[in-house]
Amino acid sequence: MKYVTLKYVTKKPKLKNPILIEGLPGIGNVGKLAVEHLIEMIHAKKFAELYSKDFPPQVFINTDGTIKLVNNEFYYWKAKKKNQQDLILLTGDYQGLSAHGQYELVEAILDLAEDLGVRQMFTLGGYGLGHEVKDPKVLFATTDKKFVKKMVKHGAVFKKNEPGGGIIGASGLLLGLGKLRGLQGVCFMGETPGYLVDPKSAKAVLKILTRVTNIDIDLSRLEQKAKEIELIAQQIREIEGLSKEKSEELRYIG
Amino acid sequence: MKYVTLKYVTKKPKLKNPILIEGLPGIGNVGKLAVEHLIEMIHAKKFAELYSKDFPPQVFINTDGTIKLVNNEFYYWKAKKKNQQDLILLTGDYQGLSAHGQYELVEAILDLAEDLGVRQMFTLGGYGLGHEVKDPKVLFATTDKKFVKKMVKHGAVFKKNEPGGGIIGASGLLLGLGKLRGLQGVCFMGETPGYLVDPKSAKAVLKILTRVTNIDIDLSRLEQKAKEIELIAQQIREIEGLSKEKSEELRYIG
Amino acid sequence: MKYVTLKYVTKKPKLKNPILIEGLPGIGNVGKLAVEHLIEMIHAKKFAELYSKDFPPQVFINTDGTIKLVNNEFYYWKAKKKNQQDLILLTGDYQGLSAHGQYELVEAILDLAEDLGVRQMFTLGGYGLGHEVKDPKVLFATTDKKFVKKMVKHGAVFKKNEPGGGIIGASGLLLGLGKLRGLQGVCFMGETPGYLVDPKSAKAVLKILTRVTNIDIDLSRLEQKAKEIELIAQQIREIEGLSKEKSEELRYIG
Amino acid sequence: MKYVTLKYVTKKPKLKNPILIEGLPGIGNVGKLAVEHLIEMIHAKKFAELYSKDFPPQVFINTDGTIKLVNNEFYYWKAKKKNQQDLILLTGDYQGLSAHGQYELVEAILDLAEDLGVRQMFTLGGYGLGHEVKDPKVLFATTDKKFVKKMVKHGAVFKKNEPGGGIIGASGLLLGLGKLRGLQGVCFMGETPGYLVDPKSAKAVLKILTRVTNIDIDLSRLEQKAKEIELIAQQIREIEGLSKEKSEELRYIG
Repeated sequence: MKYVTLKYVTKKPKLKNPILIEGLPGIGNVGKLAVEHLIEMIHAKKFAELYSKDFPPQVFINTDGTIKLVNNEFYYWKAKKKNQQDLILLTGDYQGLSAHGQYELVEAILDLAEDLGVRQMFTLGGYGLGHEVKDPKVLFATTDKKFVKKMVKHGAVFKKNEPGGGIIGASGLLLGLGKLRGLQGVCFMGETPGYLVDPKSAKAVLKILTRVTNIDIDLSRLEQKAKEIELIAQQIREIEGLSKEKSEELRYIG
Repeated sequence: MKYVTLKYVTKKPKLKNPILIEGLPGIGNVGKLAVEHLIEMIHAKKFAELYSKDFPPQVFINTDGTIKLVNNEFYYWKAKKKNQQDLILLTGDYQGLSAHGQYELVEAILDLAEDLGVRQMFTLGGYGLGHEVKDPKVLFATTDKKFVKKMVKHGAVFKKNEPGGGIIGASGLLLGLGKLRGLQGVCFMGETPGYLVDPKSAKAVLKILTRVTNIDIDLSRLEQKAKEIELIAQQIREIEGLSKEKSEELRYIG
Repeated sequence: MKYVTLKYVTKKPKLKNPILIEGLPGIGNVGKLAVEHLIEMIHAKKFAELYSKDFPPQVFINTDGTIKLVNNEFYYWKAKKKNQQDLILLTGDYQGLSAHGQYELVEAILDLAEDLGVRQMFTLGGYGLGHEVKDPKVLFATTDKKFVKKMVKHGAVFKKNEPGGGIIGASGLLLGLGKLRGLQGVCFMGETPGYLVDPKSAKAVLKILTRVTNIDIDLSRLEQKAKEIELIAQQIREIEGLSKEKSEELRYIG
Repeated sequence: MKYVTLKYVTKKPKLKNPILIEGLPGIGNVGKLAVEHLIEMIHAKKFAELYSKDFPPQVFINTDGTIKLVNNEFYYWKAKKKNQQDLILLTGDYQGLSAHGQYELVEAILDLAEDLGVRQMFTLGGYGLGHEVKDPKVLFATTDKKFVKKMVKHGAVFKKNEPGGGIIGASGLLLGLGKLRGLQGVCFMGETPGYLVDPKSAKAVLKILTRVTNIDIDLSRLEQKAKEIELIAQQIREIEGLSKEKSEELRYIG
């Protein structure tokens, strides 16, 4: 096995001018939640797996007792309408563990993408605010200035110098290394507290992405999940509130 | 020396349809204890050593003052009865230090295994509970669904979604990377507190493994070791109890 | 992409006996500030970018919403007067993350430098004192003893055994690995508290460097920046002073 | 430059059956102090330098203001008497930073050693006790049982299962990887508190080594250094004693 190994699980799909959409684990798992939901809703088909020696040496256990080596997975979907394009969707268990591993992984993803004719990418992630956010905005950054106007028109938000620290991880690297190869792309970042997985932010990201790609999908399941998470967050806040009171009490006493 | 180097210390053994049994250091050292006991009881013969540049740069000192570079070691055993199969047994001083090193090590182990005709593996490890356990169960996971029923019949326990975090290290990776090569295998995980080496858990694992492989061995030495460890654990608990009392006293005073 | 990749963004410049001047991020960002200011003042022209798999997997976002993969950048400037030499100027977003990455990066920089005819280098950095410094001195170290007298004459300071720990990072490595190739060079280190970016120290370094290279540039913008930073530092000291008082008060009470 | 690069600084020396003696930085710097003292006393001549991309990216500054890239250095010495053997002496600024780097470094050292005809090695290090030691003993370990008796006769101490954790670093790895190549060797470990550099322990190690190699050298300078260090240690103990009293006082008050 090479450092990063691609394994086709079906015949290589023949796609016409496909767009790559990436959502790997990250802050609030926004990108992963969004792409997984999209895959499910449009019934995209898995066609390839990517393994890396820079992923953790780990297998997951499926509900039937079988194991699954951690990986990244590629799905495809063929356009149904004239105003749509074929899609390649990427999600997975991990990003690379090390800087070096991240670069190797993204290079392998771009190799596959170019091999299948990809010229354009949308990468999805979260933008961690560190505080609660009622109505998460979706920020973006792009390889080419010409996309800025269009994305703003579709509801994405342009804030100068935000995120200040740039984009760390696969979502940024795909655009950065892709640009060196002449690919174009946009990274959407949903605002998120960053504490828990955030289906609300994923929904906000998908709202924009589906507008841009002319794909109409049901987002109600994400809404449902968002409510469940909100309940959990509420409980955590209560427990923290209690323990804060308690610790203040103790401090007062002590 | 390559990143991982195999060194035969005898002629390459000729084995018929051998099973690989792995037990490297890990939680409670369950796998290592089990395989070492098995090697001793069946008088398996060492035939190869594996060295890796991702092991610690360390030699151990034997009781006669000679040194031994840390490694992994392969033993073989030839079937005595019709219902048995030849075995290759793997144990060692360390697993790889880094994720990358783990993948390289396991690939080298699988290369050797395939070269000697292995199609099936049993990997042994511990499942850390973080609390005392009276009668350790043995969980399992497998490359192929067809093994589930059989393992349950032999006394292994199937719990949906357990271990929740999957399997980390060589025991999981051998199944994960092996499955990509078309090998089959089962990982047995003995429940263990995970604080100390755990011969009781190793015994529980071996009980199942010997049933599955039709090998009858004496487990009394592990029982003996388990009692010794139990004594040590008892002493530690007493000391901790004392210091806990003391620290509570102090807290009360302070 | 190789581990370190060079990408020319213009035709390879034809330079006559050029000097390499390096200023990458480091303590007080002294070197980076100095080289960036020099590039701006002499209108040096960017001709190449260096990417490394040991840089963070990160893109920055430009003010127009486009992304930029983190890198190192080379500029050149052609001598205007007889007593000047052509210059190659190097700055960038990061140094290598790991020791190995640092060596690879510096080897790639030296490859480019030798390819363009460089025989002499000036590397710029900060020397962290850990305390405020009114009038930062500029220490130096060199590949060849013959430079010592000349640098002292230009105002650099020679202190035996300082910095005690030597020079860590690209500024030192360029001289160290360069010397093995027969290149000559001097490293200038501006004294700096090391807490914040330090334009005052950068100015002190540039004062010497411009004397050595017979380049006359306006340093007033660095002075201006230095005053702004001094204001910020003042505010931080006040806040720290307050919180120190407060914590002392609390300690008194507690 | 390769990962590890050898650079001859003189013509390759012609040696007859030379012994390699290694003393790189480690606990109490015992090995490094011992080999450096030996090099000085016998006027051994430097003939090669070893550079590694797994050393820190660092240069030291010599007293004349010139820089020196961190490395390992080889010296040789030709036997003067019939009962002596030619020597190759190895010391340096660092061992490899990572496990992988340690293996690569030691392989490069063994390559050079074999190239020059080495069949036997003495590696020198410290054995950290974590407490003061009046009269440091010298423990040892060896590639071949036949050396045990001889080393004990020369005053080295054989303690079963000590050091318990084996030997970590170049001193152990040279024997471990050397043994795989058929080389023979002994590692001497001087007992040391391990807090400070320990010339007393280095002296104890050299006492044995010089007996074994029939080389008579003056050890008084090490004795002198040991006294200086003892003074410093005394001062540290006093300061620690004071602060301990003080902190006890405070605890009493608080």
